[in-house]
Amino acid sequence: MAVTHLHGPVVVIGTGLLGTSIGLGLEHRGVPVFLEDPSPTNQAVAVDIGAGRPVAELDADPGAQPEVVVVAAPPDVTADVVARSLQRWPRAVVVDIASVKGAILADLRGRGLDLSRYVGTHPMAGREKSGPVAARGELFTSMPWVVCSGAEAAPDAVRAAKALGADLGAMVVEFGPEEHDEAVALVSHLPQVMSSLLASRLQGTDLRLLALAGNGLRDTTRIAASDPGLWVQILGANAPKIVEHLYGVREDIERLIRTLEAPAAPGARLDLAQLMTEGNAGQARIPGKHGGPPQAFAWLTVLVDDRPGQIAKLLTEIGEIGVNLEDLRLDHSSGRNVGMVEISVLPSKHDALVTELEERGWRVLQ
Amino acid sequence: MAVTHLHGPVVVIGTGLLGTSIGLGLEHRGVPVFLEDPSPTNQAVAVDIGAGRPVAELDADPGAQPEVVVVAAPPDVTADVVARSLQRWPRAVVVDIASVKGAILADLRGRGLDLSRYVGTHPMAGREKSGPVAARGELFTSMPWVVCSGAEAAPDAVRAAKALGADLGAMVVEFGPEEHDEAVALVSHLPQVMSSLLASRLQGTDLRLLALAGNGLRDTTRIAASDPGLWVQILGANAPKIVEHLYGVREDIERLIRTLEAPAAPGARLDLAQLMTEGNAGQARIPGKHGGPPQAFAWLTVLVDDRPGQIAKLLTEIGEIGVNLEDLRLDHSSGRNVGMVEISVLPSKHDALVTELEERGWRVLQ
Repeated sequence: MAVTHLHGPVVVIGTGLLGTSIGLGLEHRGVPVFLEDPSPTNQAVAVDIGAGRPVAELDADPGAQPEVVVVAAPPDVTADVVARSLQRWPRAVVVDIASVKGAILADLRGRGLDLSRYVGTHPMAGREKSGPVAARGELFTSMPWVVCSGAEAAPDAVRAAKALGADLGAMVVEFGPEEHDEAVALVSHLPQVMSSLLASRLQGTDLRLLALAGNGLRDTTRIAASDPGLWVQILGANAPKIVEHLYGVREDIERLIRTLEAPAAPGARLDLAQLMTEGNAGQARIPGKHGGPPQAFAWLTVLVDDRPGQIAKLLTEIGEIGVNLEDLRLDHSSGRNVGMVEISVLPSKHDALVTELEERGWRVLQ
Repeated sequence: MAVTHLHGPVVVIGTGLLGTSIGLGLEHRGVPVFLEDPSPTNQAVAVDIGAGRPVAELDADPGAQPEVVVVAAPPDVTADVVARSLQRWPRAVVVDIASVKGAILADLRGRGLDLSRYVGTHPMAGREKSGPVAARGELFTSMPWVVCSGAEAAPDAVRAAKALGADLGAMVVEFGPEEHDEAVALVSHLPQVMSSLLASRLQGTDLRLLALAGNGLRDTTRIAASDPGLWVQILGANAPKIVEHLYGVREDIERLIRTLEAPAAPGARLDLAQLMTEGNAGQARIPGKHGGPPQAFAWLTVLVDDRPGQIAKLLTEIGEIGVNLEDLRLDHSSGRNVGMVEISVLPSKHDALVTELEERGWRVLQ
């Protein structure tokens, strides 16, 4: 089926990171964009960096009507802004991009509006940065853009919502709103909560203890650096789905506490083994590279001096050797000026690569 | 103070990943090593790959005495093997390398032995792989090797234990046994448990939901792939220290559950904000690159085709531009044949680098 493209104009309400990036991306593709933000500064910055023109210019043109209105406001006010936009532009498709869908749709349904022109969506892109200055038109390239239309949405509206994601280079996928909220509760919100719970344990400890921190701690607490302002809204809006998972986690923690209080008791070992193997099983279900089945690659760790160009040199030589790099991670946790480059390759290529790298003078640690 | 070096011979008991790597590393430095393992196959493999000679050859030489005996057995049997080794070689320093120190020392103290020649240590190296085949002499290079002598240990024994780590290229640090167990409970064992608890939630879910998984889920569940056999022993041996942290986590989860059951109630927002900001605060205490203070770098994400050599090309060009790569991560979660290379640099270099890369034709997503 041919992909529909937007011709515009598109109005973007809310020129934070996502809204401004949407504006930039569409403008780069020749789709005219008009911007509005409650903060005159945010709006001015977004206009300045080329994300679109002030919406006042659209208002000044009596015949002009937007094709699509993108509500890129914080989750708390999204339903309000969607409702106002449906009335303000009576022929536009109105989409929102908040990371929770059910609560917003429920709110809108409670207002007795005609929702045939509304489609909830969720572009899964963007770091913990915020604000228009960090915006980039390419932010959505190859990232999932979930389209979650309710039963009320007209087919043309859904097509326009999908075109928005497609025109921004995203991978458009369709989920029901409830299904979407369940998915993000599991793959995004619960991990955020667990990471923050873990990281909060590090407060008040002797820094000397943290000197032994390795990649395990760093990986599990990385997202604990997330922005509270946004996440308070997300967790609040998706609370029912998240708390369901937390009931299960609480049960598991209770059982684990009882086991660890008597680690030599009969059955204790089995309990611990069960926790570990269930973790193995769950982790193994996460999709692999490019969304395919999880694959087992072979890893090797190469020592590099912390001089400019060393990692590039290593990768170039691996390319010369003719082995494809499946994945790459750096480990700088050492206290010396060396870095460890962890490389994964197809298992069949592993041993020959290690031999070849050593012959070329690299130190392969493992 | 000059570093002591080992002259050997060194006996390694237990030729799994760590024991065999110790053998390899010492042999590479000209220190003679003798190996013993309850499994004739494991021992033969370790001998074959050059980690040392069978211990029978040492026994056959009436005058020969090892300088150091390294007990590289599983934590469950470590105290037994240490006790037997102290008696079998009455002049050797005996060290162990198990990841929990207090339980082993307490066990040995209960046997009424002379422990002046015993030093507990813990090399913090090695992946979830196991067995001698994966062993490498460089495994310990620049990794922490914690030396945890009890009050009974003679100064010469402690010196020998430190020399072992130093000769293997590790960074030797000294901790008391209790202090060590507290440290690893926090930076290693608790993260393992939290990761396994989270990953186990992924069992039995519709795989379609997991299609939206991004780096947040991957990072927080990476270590959930750890080997159950080893971890059951570790968690059991350090149970008292781990459970202390779990009491706190349970309390926090209880409070979070109550908040999420009534997310619109007064104070709910504040509770969620507090969880997030405490997570921020804890995460910020983790040491930065090379053990220094945590630093804020600026990130950018560059799109690369999934063709061989592209990442090498990108890094080479960044080197040509003259900017130092502070950190690097790949994101392959996209469903297309593209990869996203996340690069961090000094904040002052960020904007110029983005401009330069775009001029050279790279697509910078954010």
